[in-house]
Amino acid sequence: MFPLNAWYVIATADEVADSPLARTLCDIPMVLYRDSQGQIVCLQDYCPHRGAPLSLGRVNGDNLMCGYHGLEVGPDGKPAFMPKQRVERFPCVEAYQTIESGGYIFVWPGSDQPNVAQVPELPWNQPEWEFGGGSFHIQADFRLMIDNLMDLTHENYVHSSSIGQPEIDEQPVKTRRDGEWVVTERYMEAVEAPPFWKLAMQQHGLDTDQLVDRWQVCRFKAPSTIMIDVGVAPTGQGGINAPVEKKVHGIVTDFMTPETTSSHFYFWGMARSWSIGDNEVTQAIQRGQQKIFTEDLEVLERQQKSLERFPERKLLMLDIDAGGVQARRQLQAMVDAEHRG
Amino acid sequence: MFPLNAWYVIATADEVADSPLARTLCDIPMVLYRDSQGQIVCLQDYCPHRGAPLSLGRVNGDNLMCGYHGLEVGPDGKPAFMPKQRVERFPCVEAYQTIESGGYIFVWPGSDQPNVAQVPELPWNQPEWEFGGGSFHIQADFRLMIDNLMDLTHENYVHSSSIGQPEIDEQPVKTRRDGEWVVTERYMEAVEAPPFWKLAMQQHGLDTDQLVDRWQVCRFKAPSTIMIDVGVAPTGQGGINAPVEKKVHGIVTDFMTPETTSSHFYFWGMARSWSIGDNEVTQAIQRGQQKIFTEDLEVLERQQKSLERFPERKLLMLDIDAGGVQARRQLQAMVDAEHRG
Amino acid sequence: MFPLNAWYVIATADEVADSPLARTLCDIPMVLYRDSQGQIVCLQDYCPHRGAPLSLGRVNGDNLMCGYHGLEVGPDGKPAFMPKQRVERFPCVEAYQTIESGGYIFVWPGSDQPNVAQVPELPWNQPEWEFGGGSFHIQADFRLMIDNLMDLTHENYVHSSSIGQPEIDEQPVKTRRDGEWVVTERYMEAVEAPPFWKLAMQQHGLDTDQLVDRWQVCRFKAPSTIMIDVGVAPTGQGGINAPVEKKVHGIVTDFMTPETTSSHFYFWGMARSWSIGDNEVTQAIQRGQQKIFTEDLEVLERQQKSLERFPERKLLMLDIDAGGVQARRQLQAMVDAEHRG
Repeated sequence: MFPLNAWYVIATADEVADSPLARTLCDIPMVLYRDSQGQIVCLQDYCPHRGAPLSLGRVNGDNLMCGYHGLEVGPDGKPAFMPKQRVERFPCVEAYQTIESGGYIFVWPGSDQPNVAQVPELPWNQPEWEFGGGSFHIQADFRLMIDNLMDLTHENYVHSSSIGQPEIDEQPVKTRRDGEWVVTERYMEAVEAPPFWKLAMQQHGLDTDQLVDRWQVCRFKAPSTIMIDVGVAPTGQGGINAPVEKKVHGIVTDFMTPETTSSHFYFWGMARSWSIGDNEVTQAIQRGQQKIFTEDLEVLERQQKSLERFPERKLLMLDIDAGGVQARRQLQAMVDAEHRG
Repeated sequence: MFPLNAWYVIATADEVADSPLARTLCDIPMVLYRDSQGQIVCLQDYCPHRGAPLSLGRVNGDNLMCGYHGLEVGPDGKPAFMPKQRVERFPCVEAYQTIESGGYIFVWPGSDQPNVAQVPELPWNQPEWEFGGGSFHIQADFRLMIDNLMDLTHENYVHSSSIGQPEIDEQPVKTRRDGEWVVTERYMEAVEAPPFWKLAMQQHGLDTDQLVDRWQVCRFKAPSTIMIDVGVAPTGQGGINAPVEKKVHGIVTDFMTPETTSSHFYFWGMARSWSIGDNEVTQAIQRGQQKIFTEDLEVLERQQKSLERFPERKLLMLDIDAGGVQARRQLQAMVDAEHRG
Repeated sequence: MFPLNAWYVIATADEVADSPLARTLCDIPMVLYRDSQGQIVCLQDYCPHRGAPLSLGRVNGDNLMCGYHGLEVGPDGKPAFMPKQRVERFPCVEAYQTIESGGYIFVWPGSDQPNVAQVPELPWNQPEWEFGGGSFHIQADFRLMIDNLMDLTHENYVHSSSIGQPEIDEQPVKTRRDGEWVVTERYMEAVEAPPFWKLAMQQHGLDTDQLVDRWQVCRFKAPSTIMIDVGVAPTGQGGINAPVEKKVHGIVTDFMTPETTSSHFYFWGMARSWSIGDNEVTQAIQRGQQKIFTEDLEVLERQQKSLERFPERKLLMLDIDAGGVQARRQLQAMVDAEHRG
């Protein structure tokens, strides 16, 4: 159902502090905490003594202590201490490898050796970019969010008041492969900038009365990373290739983490190349994205219910759907490979 | 489970205005809207593109536009427009025939040719009658409401403070067939009028100190229409056949529309022959009926749960239950005929 | 699943007054009321006429009258009256024997002849004891509560701020059989009294600066009675055998009544031998117990969900778990005997 031998964002770094955090990833209940060095530990959320969730307990040095009868489990999942008990022969708790990077915590839920080289790169994790984000818990298959993000045609309908514009519909998308990435791109030339981008141009000192070239380059990498290069440049400056002072652009960062087959966590954010260090701009963009993604949330949750009502029906696969279709093929290939292995 | 080749009230006329209305009928998700001429359109609530519910969208002229990617569907269920797409070969959406009559919208959910002659007649839909009504969404099999209305013995127990009176129990009911109708009738002679009817007599200028003849004539027509002729006349005036100025009487109108096997919409109302044009009387009766039917609602929802707990048990079929028993037989005959067809 | 031929507490005596009380016991919907003499009657909550729950109705003398069509059922479950109907041949409602004792109502849900000798004795039901209690509705298998109470090691973790103390972990428990009872006992010598007991010593006029001997003797009798002898006495006075003026002790009384396989009613209380007649002390202890048992409630409900997620996993059975393990064996033996019979 989900590829398991892969990295998933399970939480933002600031969600895991003093007390254990319970979160289900790929149908596996997990608990996260920080050890005495601040390193993230991720264990299955199940005490081998009497089956209570370990997340009920508390952190004791490097160990997580069960809140029911005091069994302590170490960061490697081995029972480490229990008053008057010989814990050496107790069954172990499954421990999952974690990586903390760019404000996110990645977990590898599968049983294969985790491959650190596959942790998603965060190209904006550098001083010349500014980043802000948030997250949602959505009652819909994570693949519906992938479809959504790989076909921005929906902006005209779901987000008509903020980032939609008629030219989106008029300009066909192209879908192609770029190594491991599925890429869907749309370029609009000499159009009026929509409200979001007009404001960005103003913040960046560009004349908002000019027509612009606008681009949307959606890049998906299995199982759950989408980076969308978005931006506008006054027409004649080279579009996506314009010099940084002549364009406003950003990378919309999306991690869709399956919780169950019908729910996921959606970690979204936007890196930008303008108004660096301006926290007010960051917060305004966060509020705007939160509002926009709330519109998607309602659509996706209702689409999920609708699909569950008619599970046997086939969906149409138009040119605008090609990005999602190819992304799902990659996911299925990963799942198939795991089942063969 | 339900007869499908039949007319059902799906909504009141004033429920369908500018925005699409989602409603499930006989386990089929449907969406209703008015086209540019104000005609009611009813479609299956499922976009053939990506399965989103069409009710998320908005009306565009005669078409309903999906709120996700802009596919427009016409009143006949045929995809009519989508930017840059050839919609001619898209699968169609199921469209259902509708009739608007007497403030109600009737829909024919089945696949047989709709028979307009079978739309329930509304005998009170004329100037000499006054009408007011309302509706409830009830978590119980619609047949439990039919049982309820075809045996008014329950008035003494469920509605003891308003329309119940001991003579109801003392007077046996008779159940008979009248063409397509199942009729259950009870006549009480020379009894004291209960509070509801005393007030009506007063409004109609009748002496409330007199004893009255009271009648309840419940008429059921499959699958979901019940018309109950109710009234009182001072004893000696001919009872149900008394001249209109010597009696107060009405038609309690009930449409029970199955939503799922364990829930239904209940559209109720009362037409009356007194205080014509007096809106305050209409509203007072509406409030009274709403209160009375709320008592039924609680009983039916708890009866539903109780029956689900012991699905194998047989119910008793007493003389007072004969109306409901015969009504269910008619329903079953319709379902059987559809399955043979 | 549950032993049925046994007494269970279904309610406290003051819960059953003028109106019928609906409560499910061992997956059987039941209704309780008091007849004209104040005697408790317990029937299956299902009217044989149309399946409505009898608990919707009202008490009429010795009978319970269905709130839908007026069928009256007697305390023996026999239909007793219905207007214009011959009820002699109606099917009977299952009636369950009840005993009222010590403020509790016990019901025997099984089909074997009830054995009055097996009604749990309430040793504190005498003038030299003071009693106060309460109840919870808990979404967890009743056996999880038995495990909880037969292993007080959890006090150190779940109740660390009130009745926990490190010596609980340091002192091993012993589990033994005493006739029909499973007994788990722990004795701590020369320890500091925890806050709850310090207050009790003060109320009883004992010097709270002294070290104490503390005991916890948990006694389980199948299917659902636990009596825990708890207390402290200043060291050197004989511990549990100290004279009553030299110790503070009580009996924690617990009845765990299965509602379904994953929920139960928990009737808890505490009898004490000090501050007799002091209602303020009673209420303070009630509040304290309510707070403590609320901590258990959260653990048990989350443990239940966790066990449902991994139903195939075996739990560890340590020495501290022996009381619960033996209690479950007794329960299973009762169930097996019923299935053989």
